Amino acid sequence: MLVVMDKNATPDQVDRVVRTIASKGFVARPIPGGDRISIGILNNEGPVDPALFMGMPGVKDAIAVTRPYKLVSRETKAEDTLIQVGNVTIGKGHLTIIGGPCAIESETQAMTIAERVKQAGGNIFRGGAFKPRTSPYSFQGMELEGLKILAKVRETFGMPVITEVIDRETFDQVEAYADIVQIGTRNMQNFSLLKRAGQSHRPVMLKRGMSATLEEWLMAAEYIMAAGNPNILLCERGVRTFVRHSRNTLDLSVVPVIAKESHLPVLVDPSHAAGVRDQVIPLSRAALAVGAHGLMVEVHHEPENALSDGAQSLYPDQFTDLCVYARKIHDLLREH
Amino acid sequence: MLVVMDKNATPDQVDRVVRTIASKGFVARPIPGGDRISIGILNNEGPVDPALFMGMPGVKDAIAVTRPYKLVSRETKAEDTLIQVGNVTIGKGHLTIIGGPCAIESETQAMTIAERVKQAGGNIFRGGAFKPRTSPYSFQGMELEGLKILAKVRETFGMPVITEVIDRETFDQVEAYADIVQIGTRNMQNFSLLKRAGQSHRPVMLKRGMSATLEEWLMAAEYIMAAGNPNILLCERGVRTFVRHSRNTLDLSVVPVIAKESHLPVLVDPSHAAGVRDQVIPLSRAALAVGAHGLMVEVHHEPENALSDGAQSLYPDQFTDLCVYARKIHDLLREH
Amino acid sequence: MLVVMDKNATPDQVDRVVRTIASKGFVARPIPGGDRISIGILNNEGPVDPALFMGMPGVKDAIAVTRPYKLVSRETKAEDTLIQVGNVTIGKGHLTIIGGPCAIESETQAMTIAERVKQAGGNIFRGGAFKPRTSPYSFQGMELEGLKILAKVRETFGMPVITEVIDRETFDQVEAYADIVQIGTRNMQNFSLLKRAGQSHRPVMLKRGMSATLEEWLMAAEYIMAAGNPNILLCERGVRTFVRHSRNTLDLSVVPVIAKESHLPVLVDPSHAAGVRDQVIPLSRAALAVGAHGLMVEVHHEPENALSDGAQSLYPDQFTDLCVYARKIHDLLREH
Amino acid sequence: MLVVMDKNATPDQVDRVVRTIASKGFVARPIPGGDRISIGILNNEGPVDPALFMGMPGVKDAIAVTRPYKLVSRETKAEDTLIQVGNVTIGKGHLTIIGGPCAIESETQAMTIAERVKQAGGNIFRGGAFKPRTSPYSFQGMELEGLKILAKVRETFGMPVITEVIDRETFDQVEAYADIVQIGTRNMQNFSLLKRAGQSHRPVMLKRGMSATLEEWLMAAEYIMAAGNPNILLCERGVRTFVRHSRNTLDLSVVPVIAKESHLPVLVDPSHAAGVRDQVIPLSRAALAVGAHGLMVEVHHEPENALSDGAQSLYPDQFTDLCVYARKIHDLLREH
Repeated sequence: MLVVMDKNATPDQVDRVVRTIASKGFVARPIPGGDRISIGILNNEGPVDPALFMGMPGVKDAIAVTRPYKLVSRETKAEDTLIQVGNVTIGKGHLTIIGGPCAIESETQAMTIAERVKQAGGNIFRGGAFKPRTSPYSFQGMELEGLKILAKVRETFGMPVITEVIDRETFDQVEAYADIVQIGTRNMQNFSLLKRAGQSHRPVMLKRGMSATLEEWLMAAEYIMAAGNPNILLCERGVRTFVRHSRNTLDLSVVPVIAKESHLPVLVDPSHAAGVRDQVIPLSRAALAVGAHGLMVEVHHEPENALSDGAQSLYPDQFTDLCVYARKIHDLLREH
Repeated sequence: MLVVMDKNATPDQVDRVVRTIASKGFVARPIPGGDRISIGILNNEGPVDPALFMGMPGVKDAIAVTRPYKLVSRETKAEDTLIQVGNVTIGKGHLTIIGGPCAIESETQAMTIAERVKQAGGNIFRGGAFKPRTSPYSFQGMELEGLKILAKVRETFGMPVITEVIDRETFDQVEAYADIVQIGTRNMQNFSLLKRAGQSHRPVMLKRGMSATLEEWLMAAEYIMAAGNPNILLCERGVRTFVRHSRNTLDLSVVPVIAKESHLPVLVDPSHAAGVRDQVIPLSRAALAVGAHGLMVEVHHEPENALSDGAQSLYPDQFTDLCVYARKIHDLLREH
Repeated sequence: MLVVMDKNATPDQVDRVVRTIASKGFVARPIPGGDRISIGILNNEGPVDPALFMGMPGVKDAIAVTRPYKLVSRETKAEDTLIQVGNVTIGKGHLTIIGGPCAIESETQAMTIAERVKQAGGNIFRGGAFKPRTSPYSFQGMELEGLKILAKVRETFGMPVITEVIDRETFDQVEAYADIVQIGTRNMQNFSLLKRAGQSHRPVMLKRGMSATLEEWLMAAEYIMAAGNPNILLCERGVRTFVRHSRNTLDLSVVPVIAKESHLPVLVDPSHAAGVRDQVIPLSRAALAVGAHGLMVEVHHEPENALSDGAQSLYPDQFTDLCVYARKIHDLLREH
Repeated sequence: MLVVMDKNATPDQVDRVVRTIASKGFVARPIPGGDRISIGILNNEGPVDPALFMGMPGVKDAIAVTRPYKLVSRETKAEDTLIQVGNVTIGKGHLTIIGGPCAIESETQAMTIAERVKQAGGNIFRGGAFKPRTSPYSFQGMELEGLKILAKVRETFGMPVITEVIDRETFDQVEAYADIVQIGTRNMQNFSLLKRAGQSHRPVMLKRGMSATLEEWLMAAEYIMAAGNPNILLCERGVRTFVRHSRNTLDLSVVPVIAKESHLPVLVDPSHAAGVRDQVIPLSRAALAVGAHGLMVEVHHEPENALSDGAQSLYPDQFTDLCVYARKIHDLLREH
């Protein structure tokens, strides 16, 4: 933290900042500049809140210098985290493709799609049993019954399954059936849920919040890791911007930045970013080319009849093409 | 819903859209235009998902025509909702000022601030007992002990109290002690929590999500109302934009739009939008001038020592001035 | 500028940064912290580009510490700038209301509206002669003929007039007829035009760019002032965000921040922010309550027949009410 | 255009809308729905301004149904536009890589970098002679001298050159020396400049505005095409969002959407989106994988000493690697 004083700050005002820093147990180091004084804060363990100084007289700015995250930081752990789920390894050097419908709608639907996902070369099956929906009048998921269908998919096709958890009440249930527990974009800062996820023995996929900064996202992962669970996958799924030609704006620049800042694997979900099928395939290619460790893509055999997100679901044949493409791009990157 | 076809859509493609509409139980009404056909959807009860059509061949666009919210809509209930909490009436024609610290830190702190809030003319006392914090290493609130202090404030000063609830587990507790239950910005689309709030006998203050559209916000209120609780206050608290001179951008235009779209009262929290004290007072004045039914403002007698959000907390004297100002602006508006 | 090194930056990497700083003629001051070194840059006259260091090995971050603007800064000139245009004074302590149509459409239209603006208590008449329009097929303004009508308005009603200039070619013309020259939102970073405005003997109203930060906006004003023209009015008119219920999001927090950072007067244009009439009046009240020195509002006697922006233009009677309101809010603020 | 009436709109209000539509020479077609009337507008040549109706009593919404752009639309011209510059073809099926420094700083600098760009397999050389800079105190370019150096690059290496034009005054000069004239992001809606570009015999590269919607961008291209110049390249360069880990957010979803909406070629500039070198290479790969027709990348042999944008400039060796990669990804896409 660097506290920048006004040009005409009085010695008293500088002194007050220095004393405030000392009162928190930190070391204050004033740095006289050309036309104003700045005060560095040393020896702080965790992050210091800039707000602490922003309201004080004579203070122009308070600037965070170090990152607030620790356990998830590459500075803390240099080597890449690999996550093992059944026979699937997720992380650097591996390509993981997750496919399946937005929601589990019936056993027939799930099994039909899972078969196609498996044939295409998908690694993990996805399907929502508890659905967070914008409208209370929309289909809210099959709940426990949906989880049981997921278990059947795993048994039948030998693929691990991932599904979303939406509250603490149903966490035990989800954890019992799923191989990976997903925390959705709207719950990224549901800290109560994050703490529960930190106590889980399952890997957790943490989707980025709709308008989360990189720092907030990594701090959400820090919640999970600080509570004891080191197996976290990050998943970029588009952020909210002024743009209207896609549902959200896929922020692919976050992928190389995460690779630099954190040791955690990062996947990309192009389906929710796009909102329409046409954009899903090109954005999937782009996600792999930018260096993501995998994809999570919605697939449906009858998207017109899907109970949710039909427009953004790929047809199974499209998913098959995508898998072929994906492996080629992944191989291309590994050569270099 | 209006489905707009491509200029060169084939009759078959048009027919397929018509049949899909019919299969959902709605009425399709094709509207031939100058150079393309559009198809209106009639007789739909709730909203129709544009995504249903966006992926179909020959479809250029699918445009929502009506609003998805019902119970919270002014079209459903024309008269303004007034909420009674103790001797305080919240809503059109009334001015409600909520003041207090970000977090309850001790009984002494709470009582000291509450006395000043009361003297200044504040109507309701605020203070967090369960705190949603970006960092797992930050102060997370006094929890049950904090709730008990809030109850003591109410008894001592005769002011209703409001505090945030962050999960279903602690909802009963919060409900037992608070006069108004607050759902915070990060939980605006925690649908599980919204459903629980819908079963509460307490009024609920629903803060706007960090990047929520008006529609998403009203749909979140719809969740609460659909579950049985009609006593909802909306609270604008700034949205996330590219702007860096304030923590969030206070979206005051939402106040007159809500007044048009919904019958629910709307308050404004300038403290979280601003992030720094200097902006809180001018933004408070602006919030009342734009027509908000009240304010929620952070107040602290020793902001430098606050455990959270010190920089945006007003000193008690500033809060007193603000209350004087607020009543004058409110009176000015009522004259017209 | 503060250059923050990686935790494990080598002495060589630190040295290279120090030498780079020295090579630019600045003084480097390394600041050893708890777990990493930061290097302060002193004695720099103007701003230093963070990009200079961001790409160097071992550098984690490069953080601007001081503001890049000088002439427009309150640190350079503490007293508020007042601008005199005819008998109108613009700036602190004064309330300036600018009204008129989006575009001059005919002499009759302009004179009819000007009469109503004058009667209502408006101080300055606005009207576009050169119109920047999103579509090449939209009405582009009456050009020279429009300027002549503006001159007639000034003579007839004794009100100064303001109109937009869109390029250097027509600057002489606009300058010859207008009392204040306006640079629109799309030209805020048209640096060629800004330099020409800096040579003008007319005051310049600089509207904020659609997605301009405060810093970029003030730097645009710095261009004008550095070229010799100190008479600049800033005008906030809404920024682009994800929000859809208003055309742009009026960023009122910028008003108190400008008052702190700069000595220049700031007005607010609620018409372009809102895009619809219903929001213009409440946002106008809010703009004055937040501390703006004035308003620029679109007024039309027959908005349904306006050639541009009819939906956001007030009826003359609404403008009259607004002026009454505005003076009351302005008086209320001056009392305090 | 579809005008949606309030549920309780009166027959008079409906009638007034119908008459307003008729008065503009269009055909009004009322569409009775379940609970409200909507009115379609037919036979309109160009787009209709929604604002025309938004302010009328009884109107809830006015929704644009068709796109406002014509000449640039794929509905107007189905086949892809290819642009020939010297021996380089730009557009579908071709891969164009533009490389060079942000600004021409000296003949030696330009020739040194051009040689490396040529060797690496770059197709076109870029370099700014007139630089739009946020600060009036920053290097503004070598102007005419810079243009002459560009001409020398073309002669020496046989590569076409592209450079930015910033105003009408210097357009003739730029046009005389450059093979492609670039209009920068800050001038995307400088309509005066667009009209001049429309009269140029040179192809124009139109960069996307910092916060331009797809529609505004294509309308800016429409200005150029409507004035007579059909040779337009679009260039995505990142948009402004809340994100802070990259300078701008590269919006790759726009690439497939443009391919659907327009026949114009689209390139991607990852350098300005990223702002730092580390992100440029992965984003370049992603841009090609998403389907862009080429890249524009900043290259500098001594980025630490660059007069602008050093941090985002690739070293020549990195650019060479990038070109190799780029061709492989391009080939991969063509196979499918």
